[in-house]
Amino acid sequence: MDVIVGGGVVGLSVAWRLAREGRPVTVVDPSPASGASHAAAGMLAPVSEVTYTEAPLLRLGVAALRRWPAFATALAEDAGLPPAGPEGVSGLDLRAEGTLDVAFGADDMAALDELAAFMEKLDLPVERLTGRECRRLEPMLAPSVRGGLLAPGDAWVNPRRVTAALLTALERRGVPIVRARVSELVRTDGAVTGVRLAGPPAVPAEGRGSAPLAATEGRAGGEVLAAERVVLAAGAWSGELAEVPVRPVKGQIMRLRSPQPLLTRCVRGTVHGSPVYLVPRGDGELVVGATQEELGYDTRVTAGGLYELLRDARELVPGVTELEVADVVAGLRPGTPDNLPLIGPGRTPGLTYATGHHRGGVLMAPLTAAILMGEESELAALCSPGRFREIS
Amino acid sequence: MDVIVGGGVVGLSVAWRLAREGRPVTVVDPSPASGASHAAAGMLAPVSEVTYTEAPLLRLGVAALRRWPAFATALAEDAGLPPAGPEGVSGLDLRAEGTLDVAFGADDMAALDELAAFMEKLDLPVERLTGRECRRLEPMLAPSVRGGLLAPGDAWVNPRRVTAALLTALERRGVPIVRARVSELVRTDGAVTGVRLAGPPAVPAEGRGSAPLAATEGRAGGEVLAAERVVLAAGAWSGELAEVPVRPVKGQIMRLRSPQPLLTRCVRGTVHGSPVYLVPRGDGELVVGATQEELGYDTRVTAGGLYELLRDARELVPGVTELEVADVVAGLRPGTPDNLPLIGPGRTPGLTYATGHHRGGVLMAPLTAAILMGEESELAALCSPGRFREIS
Repeated sequence: MDVIVGGGVVGLSVAWRLAREGRPVTVVDPSPASGASHAAAGMLAPVSEVTYTEAPLLRLGVAALRRWPAFATALAEDAGLPPAGPEGVSGLDLRAEGTLDVAFGADDMAALDELAAFMEKLDLPVERLTGRECRRLEPMLAPSVRGGLLAPGDAWVNPRRVTAALLTALERRGVPIVRARVSELVRTDGAVTGVRLAGPPAVPAEGRGSAPLAATEGRAGGEVLAAERVVLAAGAWSGELAEVPVRPVKGQIMRLRSPQPLLTRCVRGTVHGSPVYLVPRGDGELVVGATQEELGYDTRVTAGGLYELLRDARELVPGVTELEVADVVAGLRPGTPDNLPLIGPGRTPGLTYATGHHRGGVLMAPLTAAILMGEESELAALCSPGRFREIS
Repeated sequence: MDVIVGGGVVGLSVAWRLAREGRPVTVVDPSPASGASHAAAGMLAPVSEVTYTEAPLLRLGVAALRRWPAFATALAEDAGLPPAGPEGVSGLDLRAEGTLDVAFGADDMAALDELAAFMEKLDLPVERLTGRECRRLEPMLAPSVRGGLLAPGDAWVNPRRVTAALLTALERRGVPIVRARVSELVRTDGAVTGVRLAGPPAVPAEGRGSAPLAATEGRAGGEVLAAERVVLAAGAWSGELAEVPVRPVKGQIMRLRSPQPLLTRCVRGTVHGSPVYLVPRGDGELVVGATQEELGYDTRVTAGGLYELLRDARELVPGVTELEVADVVAGLRPGTPDNLPLIGPGRTPGLTYATGHHRGGVLMAPLTAAILMGEESELAALCSPGRFREIS
C-alpha cells in the first residue's frame, strides 16, 4: 500500500490518480483540504506567474496547465459533479479567460516589455496592450493603469471545490482518509516502511468502502501504518518528517463578495513594489492575494498583511472599496531554494516526495501525479529531489 | 409592568435599574447584547469626544462619566463578578487612564488649541502636550505626532463584558428576557398599552425566577405583551416602531490581538480627515474604531471600511502592523439630528424613549437609567424627546 502524508491538493491528487490506477492507497492528514490549499486563489497562470529568469518553472507551469482540462473533466465525473454549468467547467469553477498583467509606472512598463519579449521567444501567446485596451477588456481597472500584458491561455479554478471533489472521488473509490497527524516516518534497515500516527488511535473517514488500515502496531506514540511507499505531500510541514529543503512562506489572502462581477478575468499588477492579483469567481467572490512573508510557522492574519492587500487591490480596481469582506485567511506555502517542487524518490528507499510547490500547488497537482506515474520523464528530471544534497 | 424594547447596553441598563427599584420589568430583544453594543469600543470619553460646538453634549457626557464608577461597582456585585482584578475595575475592564488626542499637522494642532481653550473655560481638566511629551506617555506613537491633548479623567470599559454582566444580573433578579422581535406597539385609545411580538410564540430566557409573561393574546402576527409603560430602547431600529428622528449611522470596528500592550491609554487622532481611535483592553485586545457611514441598514464589513481603519491606525501607531486581526464587525448607531439622545416620555401616554445615543450609548447608559428615574431633571430637559416636533 502507498501512504500519502498530506491531504492538500497535491496529496489528494496523487492519491486519486493512484486509486484510479487500481493501487491501494491511504491518505493521512489531521485536517484534509485545509492549509495552503484552503488559502490558495487557484490561479493556473504559468505565463504570468513567472519572471524571465525562471525558464524551468515556466516549462513546468505550461505543462501543468495543459493537464488541467482533462484532469477537471475526469475529476468531475468521478466525484459526480455536473459536467458543466454557469460557474465554469465541471462545477470546479475552472475558467480560462486569461490573465491580464498591468503596469502603472515606467519601471512596470519596462518589466512587461521584457516579459513579453521572453514569452515570444518561447512561442508563448501573449499580447501587449495599452492602458486604454486594458480598460476596454476590464472597465473597472484604475485610470492610472498605463499598459498591460494579456496571457490569453491562463486559467483559474476554485481550489476549495477541487479538494472537496477530490475527497468525494476518493471516498467513492473507497480510499481511507486517516484524520491524524504523522509523528514520524518508520524506518527499517534504512528504508521507510510506514508512518507512525500521533495521538490516540486514528479512525478512517466515515463512508462506504473504507478499507481497514493495513497493519497497526502498538508502540509508544501511536499506531503505525505500514507502507510499501510513503509519499510525502505535507507541504510546508514536510521538513518535520524528513531532511528536505522546504520552508514555510506565509501568504495572507482575502475573499470579497461582489454582487455584480467587477472583473471577467484574473488581473495582476505590482503596487508599491509588491505583486497583487484579483481572481473573480463564478459565484461573485473576488479573491485578493497574496502577501509573501518569511516568518516561520506563523498563520496569523495581521493588520499589516490585510492593509497591504486592501491598499494594493484598491490601486488596481478602486471599486473593490464597496465590496463586502467575506473571509481572510493565511496559509503557508512550501518554498524551496530554487522555486521548483520536489517530485519523485530521494535517497531513502520507500520514500517519495511530492512537496515544495510553493505558489504552484494547485496548478501543478495534476502534473505532479503524472510525474509520479512516470509519464513525464523530462520534467521529472527538473523536479528530482536528488538535486539537493541535503535530501533524505 | 414595564416592557423594555431593546436589549442593548441602554435597554439592559434601564431594565436593571428598574429591577433594583423593585419594579416588574421585561426586556424584549431577538438577540440581546448584539448590535451597536456588541460593536462599540466602550470609550467613556466625554471630553475628547466633543467638539467645541457641542456644549450640551459635553455636559451630558461629563455627568454620564461621573455615574460610571458606582454603576460598575454595583453591577459587578449584582452579577457576582470579582470586585477588582488585573483587567480593571470589577471584571468589566473599566479603566481610567485618560484619553490622548494627538495632532499631526498644523490644522490638527490649531483644533487641539481651540478644544483646550474651550475645556479650560468649562473648568474641565485637560493638558496640552508636545509631540515629545506624547511619546513619553505612549512610546509607540508615530514619530510624526506633533502634539496632543490629554484628558486625564476619560475612561473606557469593555462593552461586551458590561452587557454580559447586565444579562447575568437581570437573570439573577428574575427579569425575563424575551428573545423575540417586536412587530408593533399596541395602542388603546391613543395610549401605548403593550407590544406585539413577531413570529412564533416567544419563550422567556432560561434561568431561575423567570416571571410568566404578563398577558398574551392570540391576534394575527403574534403574541401581545401588555405593559403599563413601554420603553423604546431599540437603538437604530427605534424608527420602525414609532415616529422618532433616529437614523442608522454605520460604524465598522476592528479588534487586534496584542501579545504585549502597545498603549496604556486611549489614543485618538484625525488621519486623512477622518477620526480614528485605539482602545487598549486588559486582555491584550486593541480596538480600532470606527468608520461613520450613512448607508441605511447596511451592516456589511467592507474592503473600504477596513482599509480606512488599518491605514489610519498605522498612521497613529505604526506597530499595529504586526498585530493579529481578531475580529471585525459593523454596527448601526442611532443618530439624531442634534447628536443628543432621546430620553423620557414623548407625546403618547405609555411610551417612553431611551434611544438616539449615537456614539454615546455605553457612556450614557447609566445616566439614561438615572434620568428615567427622575434623578437628573436639568439634563432630562436637554434630552427631552418633545424637542422634536415629529416625535410620537
